[in-house]
Amino acid sequence: MFYLIGLGLGNAKDITVKGLEIVKKCDKVLLEGYTSILTVGHNVLEEFYGRPIIIADRELCESHIDSFLMEAQDNDIALLVVGDPLGATTHTDMLLRAKQLGVRTEIIHNASIMNAVSCCGLQLYNFGETISIPYWTETWKPDSFYEKIIGNYTRNLHTLCLLDIKVKEPTEESLTKKVRQYMKPKFMTVCEASTQLLHIIKEKLNSGLTEDTLAVGLSRVGAPDQRITVRSLKEMQNHELGPPLHSLVIPSPNLHPLELDYLAQFR
Amino acid sequence: MFYLIGLGLGNAKDITVKGLEIVKKCDKVLLEGYTSILTVGHNVLEEFYGRPIIIADRELCESHIDSFLMEAQDNDIALLVVGDPLGATTHTDMLLRAKQLGVRTEIIHNASIMNAVSCCGLQLYNFGETISIPYWTETWKPDSFYEKIIGNYTRNLHTLCLLDIKVKEPTEESLTKKVRQYMKPKFMTVCEASTQLLHIIKEKLNSGLTEDTLAVGLSRVGAPDQRITVRSLKEMQNHELGPPLHSLVIPSPNLHPLELDYLAQFR
Repeated sequence: MFYLIGLGLGNAKDITVKGLEIVKKCDKVLLEGYTSILTVGHNVLEEFYGRPIIIADRELCESHIDSFLMEAQDNDIALLVVGDPLGATTHTDMLLRAKQLGVRTEIIHNASIMNAVSCCGLQLYNFGETISIPYWTETWKPDSFYEKIIGNYTRNLHTLCLLDIKVKEPTEESLTKKVRQYMKPKFMTVCEASTQLLHIIKEKLNSGLTEDTLAVGLSRVGAPDQRITVRSLKEMQNHELGPPLHSLVIPSPNLHPLELDYLAQFR
Repeated sequence: MFYLIGLGLGNAKDITVKGLEIVKKCDKVLLEGYTSILTVGHNVLEEFYGRPIIIADRELCESHIDSFLMEAQDNDIALLVVGDPLGATTHTDMLLRAKQLGVRTEIIHNASIMNAVSCCGLQLYNFGETISIPYWTETWKPDSFYEKIIGNYTRNLHTLCLLDIKVKEPTEESLTKKVRQYMKPKFMTVCEASTQLLHIIKEKLNSGLTEDTLAVGLSRVGAPDQRITVRSLKEMQNHELGPPLHSLVIPSPNLHPLELDYLAQFR
């Protein structure tokens, strides 16, 4: 059996009781560590589970998962995923691959930023399409996500912006070489995201958003040191929100009174 | 301290390890039972926790919660909620009320249908606004949710439709009487939801959807007897999907190849 187990967002104890029981009985336990990250080291998990953990990086998940799936034909293998296990396309793909190999699968759901974002008081059913803000480079500055924010905003919907993370990304120079070299991990902050957004806003005048548009910055949602702040994009640009992961929300222009009251605590 | 604890979607063991630890140490444990329901009886929870549970109906949550919040000034009180605790407006309201009373609060997140719906293979970032389909009566047939489905559909986004539940609803006749009488609980099925949708589609020709539009029916997501089916709205109208809760998804017109491959298993 191949288990995809969501770990939730905070620390080791955010796994479900069912998930923990499965981890304890599995023959091998892998931890996917590149679509999201834990707020605790994987050694904390190993200690809590009493089990060794194999770190599954992008290469393993995308190119070498078959050997683990084959093993799951006769053994119990678990892949642990931060948040909910089906937040990223990779894992849906893995389930299809498992099916092709005749491996039974089970999904253990958990909280993800997609629902836990409600901790800021904005109602989930008032959110439109979720978008991702990628890190810009000198030569690559995509802004297609901005149209989606505007699409939500004009329909009076909130936008959850997932911020880019770079974990074990090969350096450009090493892509053509035999031995891959990797960049230092980096995680986009609400400052960086706001800066990129303000850059687009300046280019697209009268698009609906301005530097005074309200934004909600969130860090480490679900962890004991979770932080939430509400301020204009201009102010958010200079606001440090501590260690990763960060998320940014652009609330709809007309908020429900309850949403306004709740956000007021974080201003 | 006042704890809002998400129970997830399946059975007793879908609570998180942290959530369970809190339940075991709390002075009083309440279970909110009208915005969603468990797939197991509350006696199963009592046995699993080794704690008595107070059932919190709509009246208690909306009108009598203050006495419990006051108690939480000096004691630990937990309110258990199916899914994630902030899926419903009531609970956000409760947190604000707690703040006014000077009561500290903590939220323990869990999976909800808003993220677990990804089990059908449709990607979460391709979902637009979530809508609710209410039970129609002889004289009250609202259809404003339909415009939102069309809004998503025309932007090539999926729509998650949450289906109405009626738990401990006073009968109309008893509203003016001293002694309230309650209706038998009922939970909208994918058949009923499709029937209402088809009714609207007939009235609004050329709106974008037809009786042949593809829909995804889901029941008991996250539970061992979870079921998923993919078929046209016309066919869904006659398809029994077993015991509650049910949800319906109207997928976007142009699906990603991976989404198509994944949905194919459920046709």
